[in-house]
Amino acid sequence: MNVLLTLAYDGAAYCGWQRQENGVSVQQRVEESLGSLYGRNVSATGASRTDAGVHARGQRAAFKLDERDVSVPLDKLPYALNARLPEDIVVLKAEEVAENFHPIFSAKAKAYEYRLYNAPFMDPLLRSRCAHVRPPLDLQAMERSAAQLVGTHDFKAFSASGSGAKTSVRTVYSIDIISAGPEITIRIRGNGFLYNMVRIIAGTLVYAGEGKPMDIPAIIASRDREQAGKTMPPYGLCLVEVFY
Amino acid sequence: MNVLLTLAYDGAAYCGWQRQENGVSVQQRVEESLGSLYGRNVSATGASRTDAGVHARGQRAAFKLDERDVSVPLDKLPYALNARLPEDIVVLKAEEVAENFHPIFSAKAKAYEYRLYNAPFMDPLLRSRCAHVRPPLDLQAMERSAAQLVGTHDFKAFSASGSGAKTSVRTVYSIDIISAGPEITIRIRGNGFLYNMVRIIAGTLVYAGEGKPMDIPAIIASRDREQAGKTMPPYGLCLVEVFY
Repeated sequence: MNVLLTLAYDGAAYCGWQRQENGVSVQQRVEESLGSLYGRNVSATGASRTDAGVHARGQRAAFKLDERDVSVPLDKLPYALNARLPEDIVVLKAEEVAENFHPIFSAKAKAYEYRLYNAPFMDPLLRSRCAHVRPPLDLQAMERSAAQLVGTHDFKAFSASGSGAKTSVRTVYSIDIISAGPEITIRIRGNGFLYNMVRIIAGTLVYAGEGKPMDIPAIIASRDREQAGKTMPPYGLCLVEVFY
Repeated sequence: MNVLLTLAYDGAAYCGWQRQENGVSVQQRVEESLGSLYGRNVSATGASRTDAGVHARGQRAAFKLDERDVSVPLDKLPYALNARLPEDIVVLKAEEVAENFHPIFSAKAKAYEYRLYNAPFMDPLLRSRCAHVRPPLDLQAMERSAAQLVGTHDFKAFSASGSGAKTSVRTVYSIDIISAGPEITIRIRGNGFLYNMVRIIAGTLVYAGEGKPMDIPAIIASRDREQAGKTMPPYGLCLVEVFY
């Protein structure tokens, strides 16, 4: 049986989703909880390789059960796994999916949120969730730049090197700027994202909001990382949904 | 000159506002930052003795400057102190107040928020801010009980022993229950609060929301701590405002 988990985590303590030599990953902790429950090595494949420090409210991860495994009803599985996980990783749901389902290749779209705190002084209770931006941001300028990013474009100027992706063409379906007092959320939905793409888009929108000239069509056309805004820090980013 | 600071802090790492032998307090860190800036010992008096683990967005603390102290414009003082404070304590404002102003005795009212996360599974990103409550809460039942707590009452049943207060009569001006999805905020405003009073009121309202019979007038009349709900954990509580 192919099982799909929905996961939330605070990424602060982890080197990201993916297992790595030098650091504890979310994948390792999830696989350890599955291993402890089923009494054998279980591999879990995540939908998205969230980077070190990046959070998730809707990460997905699939694993295979075989007939010899102890039978745990899927609606009870989150409780059994959460009892084995540290409190910064939570399994929200477990569901059966088709045998040919793949968490990465079956994904149609993903949504991320980048959160900013726009005030002279940071709220210390949000310091692990939001990036602090001091200068007052012009939300309309951010929205205008965001609208120019929506669509199918070569986003090479908005990606860090080393992603190894075959093409840098991606489709961004929507970017919404939601503000509530000093908290500003950039919500972005697309069919896929290049390495650091959301954090660079967030940095570019912050520059636009600060009044720096950001000619989005020209930046896209340049395919030059130097033309876009800075890479915002990881702790403002959260993977909120994977759409299948 | 009498100076009043407005402070925000994440209480997780501290034994509370007040200096204590066995632990680091917020007061100690604030006094250290003042001492570092002015080059002498400076005492700061807080408006509220927040307990270990309790947060603040609007704590107030006063200290005296004398004429020999280096002159730092009050609008620049938050920057100078924040540069000397850890990132979980932030000075939001500094203002001059009258010589006879006292942060505790001049306070007319205080507002606290107690935050709950009401869902089967906790959001790991809110685990240091909200108390997790699994059973679905009946907000209307909570509001009915809250309305019965508003007013001038003897709140002895809603206080932990050891407060040393002369009287347990307090006036609660308002209790609002604000919900946004699974997040529920209990906002309470009063002329003063007994030891653990907000956390016990929150626990009593949670019991009411879970359908446990909570006869508020009878609990008040009993003056018996055993009759009220449980003391909710400190990390859900935040001092949001002190009114002068």
